Amino acid sequence: MLFSHPATFTDLYELTMAQGYYLSNRQTETATFDYFFRRAPFDGGYVLFAGLSDFLEMLKEYHFKEDELNYLKEKGFKDSFIDYLRDFKFTGSIYSVKEGEIIFPNEPVLRVEGSILETQVIETLLLNTLNFESLIATKSARIRQVAGNKTVVDFGLRRSQGFGGIQASKAAVIGGLNGTSNVFAGLLYDLEISGTMAHSWIQSFDDELTAFRTYAQHYPDSCVLLVDTYDTLKSGVPNAIEIAKELSKNGHQLVGIRLDSGDLAYFSKKARKMLDEAGFTEVKIAVSNQLDEHLIKSLEEQNAPIDLFGVGTRLITAYDNPALDGVYKLSEINGNPTLKISENVEKITLPAAKKITRYYNKDGTFNCDGISLVNEPTPDQIQHPYFPTKKTEVGSLSSEELLEEVVRKGEVIISIPSATESAAYAAKQITRLNAEHKRFDNPHVYKVGISKPLANLRDRIINERSKNG
Amino acid sequence: MLFSHPATFTDLYELTMAQGYYLSNRQTETATFDYFFRRAPFDGGYVLFAGLSDFLEMLKEYHFKEDELNYLKEKGFKDSFIDYLRDFKFTGSIYSVKEGEIIFPNEPVLRVEGSILETQVIETLLLNTLNFESLIATKSARIRQVAGNKTVVDFGLRRSQGFGGIQASKAAVIGGLNGTSNVFAGLLYDLEISGTMAHSWIQSFDDELTAFRTYAQHYPDSCVLLVDTYDTLKSGVPNAIEIAKELSKNGHQLVGIRLDSGDLAYFSKKARKMLDEAGFTEVKIAVSNQLDEHLIKSLEEQNAPIDLFGVGTRLITAYDNPALDGVYKLSEINGNPTLKISENVEKITLPAAKKITRYYNKDGTFNCDGISLVNEPTPDQIQHPYFPTKKTEVGSLSSEELLEEVVRKGEVIISIPSATESAAYAAKQITRLNAEHKRFDNPHVYKVGISKPLANLRDRIINERSKNG
Repeated sequence: MLFSHPATFTDLYELTMAQGYYLSNRQTETATFDYFFRRAPFDGGYVLFAGLSDFLEMLKEYHFKEDELNYLKEKGFKDSFIDYLRDFKFTGSIYSVKEGEIIFPNEPVLRVEGSILETQVIETLLLNTLNFESLIATKSARIRQVAGNKTVVDFGLRRSQGFGGIQASKAAVIGGLNGTSNVFAGLLYDLEISGTMAHSWIQSFDDELTAFRTYAQHYPDSCVLLVDTYDTLKSGVPNAIEIAKELSKNGHQLVGIRLDSGDLAYFSKKARKMLDEAGFTEVKIAVSNQLDEHLIKSLEEQNAPIDLFGVGTRLITAYDNPALDGVYKLSEINGNPTLKISENVEKITLPAAKKITRYYNKDGTFNCDGISLVNEPTPDQIQHPYFPTKKTEVGSLSSEELLEEVVRKGEVIISIPSATESAAYAAKQITRLNAEHKRFDNPHVYKVGISKPLANLRDRIINERSKNG
Repeated sequence: MLFSHPATFTDLYELTMAQGYYLSNRQTETATFDYFFRRAPFDGGYVLFAGLSDFLEMLKEYHFKEDELNYLKEKGFKDSFIDYLRDFKFTGSIYSVKEGEIIFPNEPVLRVEGSILETQVIETLLLNTLNFESLIATKSARIRQVAGNKTVVDFGLRRSQGFGGIQASKAAVIGGLNGTSNVFAGLLYDLEISGTMAHSWIQSFDDELTAFRTYAQHYPDSCVLLVDTYDTLKSGVPNAIEIAKELSKNGHQLVGIRLDSGDLAYFSKKARKMLDEAGFTEVKIAVSNQLDEHLIKSLEEQNAPIDLFGVGTRLITAYDNPALDGVYKLSEINGNPTLKISENVEKITLPAAKKITRYYNKDGTFNCDGISLVNEPTPDQIQHPYFPTKKTEVGSLSSEELLEEVVRKGEVIISIPSATESAAYAAKQITRLNAEHKRFDNPHVYKVGISKPLANLRDRIINERSKNG
């Protein structure tokens, strides 16, 4: 479903402009666009880049269907342009950092080169996909950061923003979650799925013990019992222990209990003690209910004996910051570098096709990033974008270029990574980002500089503009 | 696309429980579930109910496809249950308030009756759809409230939460927006679509005037020029006026200009003055850039001469409150009323199948709502759910029942309303809600009471529980 998405999943102005280029006979003129974001969400220090795989899958299938063309015709688009769209296919090239990469504000992490028409037409799909999946992957990485090696599962589908929940569950796994309750996302993206019972299961039986026992009969080896329907400590946990005994007699083992309300630190400690005293030290404790990285951090600090966190709304909608401000800006037209000037100096964009070099410390952790023109040698020195006197020598550091060609003349030339593969890459990269950039409160700003030639080019264009203007 | 959505768009536990009911031979036992929310979003006083149409459309097509069944088999579901799912179809009944209705916390606005299995299986889809569309429709209604009769358009797709953007654009129209930039949503839901040019269009030309002129040549009767690429007042507006003159000479008329940055009150006033002085009093001013109900209210209070607001991220993600907390709770099992007790008294649910009666003032505005058992006569008196001494006599007021049967034995028996129809109903209802319940700061709580028989039933069940517990 997701990959045969409609090409009209776009803002109208992309098509209005595209027709304008077409009718002006400019459709073969070339353009370069950069994707970047300006501010890390959650007052954090980084973003985990995600959405590339889905975007590439959708780009492969990108075409206008007849009902879409008919609709555009109804809306006044010209026959000649409709005919053009009928055969439309993206034929440009795309350079990108890897899905799962750690990225920072203002870095051009994805570059699109092609005709002005085709590079414009794909803008909305690109922004929609990269912005949202990167947002959720970043939230998930923050949750993973505090959950250590404990199991964390996405339970958010019922509160997710409509069908966005499908991509969100994938992005959550890329960011570090173990799995999801979302069955369709599991099918589509080969994610681990999990889920056992709701309060309604318990309520549908005459009593809690019968509800537990019936479930255990059907699922003797994957039984997690929800213990807070009536009274957690007086009824839920004792009944679960009874079932654990029954399962044990028959050669099975109760997997766990789940708490979904109340003070999770208090109840998990009490429940752990009761389970342990009954000899069920291996029975795990799962919790859910409005969890996010801050609440999980607090539970961990209280040494709550929790084995599994089920996170919902606050992850799946990125509740405290539900959009990433990623943009798509023109940097070159017909081979000529260009930029967008703004009253707000921090919103002035960087011209021309660029690359990102990441510099490493001796222990393999990230030192800083440099943005430079694609044809420059690797910069030995980078400078602050707005304070040229703030220079950093980086020549002695080992380095690596982050962007790789992923689409060449319309063909995807990489093996599109699975969610699990991107998650593995993300997990590796996140360990290479030093803790001061990952902390939740006032994270230390990671250094991203630009090269002297890039700075000179930018300043030259700004000066020419102001002379002409 | 949206309506042939996968049946596995669900939390795994719905299917785990369903198989449990099936294997326990309980699949024909009956259940009743209520949908309601607990807290109005945005610190507001109401919710605009939306999502019913999409939910019903999806329910019509609800079935498990072979690839889904194969996946469930791989995940360990039993062959007999897979066979059952192959022919699964919802055969129960649904009672609901109208799409576009104004609803309040804790009101059971939608009731599902059917077998315990089928009523459970559809939970996630129902919650996902109603929660999200009601959330966005409510945000949109708040924006409409401050925008008066001015045109307001959704420009949010690039920042929307993935494919959730499709439903969001529809919900925005139900809530009161005039249209959207989202072409696919336009096609799917027959919404007005709009959109002209981005900064990249201007930048792709050697100069702004040529960019404007070229656009005007191709779109002489629908030309809205983006005037802030270089310098709004020195370049953008003067160039737009030049184009307005050229269009005028050829018998056309410039539709408008758009401001997308800077102080929108300041620039709109300056631009209005310049346009008026050049004789183009009919040219409209459109603005965009991080708008929400609060910013639009401020612009209106400053008498900014703005004709069209383009709203993006803050509407389409419900940025300041990106989830509605709607839940789906069991109220009856095999004809026996049930409820869920909670330590938090406000989370105790209401038992049995219920109806909602709305009472009206003489001028047609809403006075209060009463929740009662379906078979009761219309209550003459309602009481506060937790303070039975707080009684309100309502017998002298005219009244109406809000829930109507929309699905009978699996068949949708209403004409599913279009977005435009639901929008019209919403617009009518919102005028009937008094201003004190609509204000943004500390809105007056709208009175929702319960009937004496319902209160008695609830108390009886709670007492029986505590005796047995």
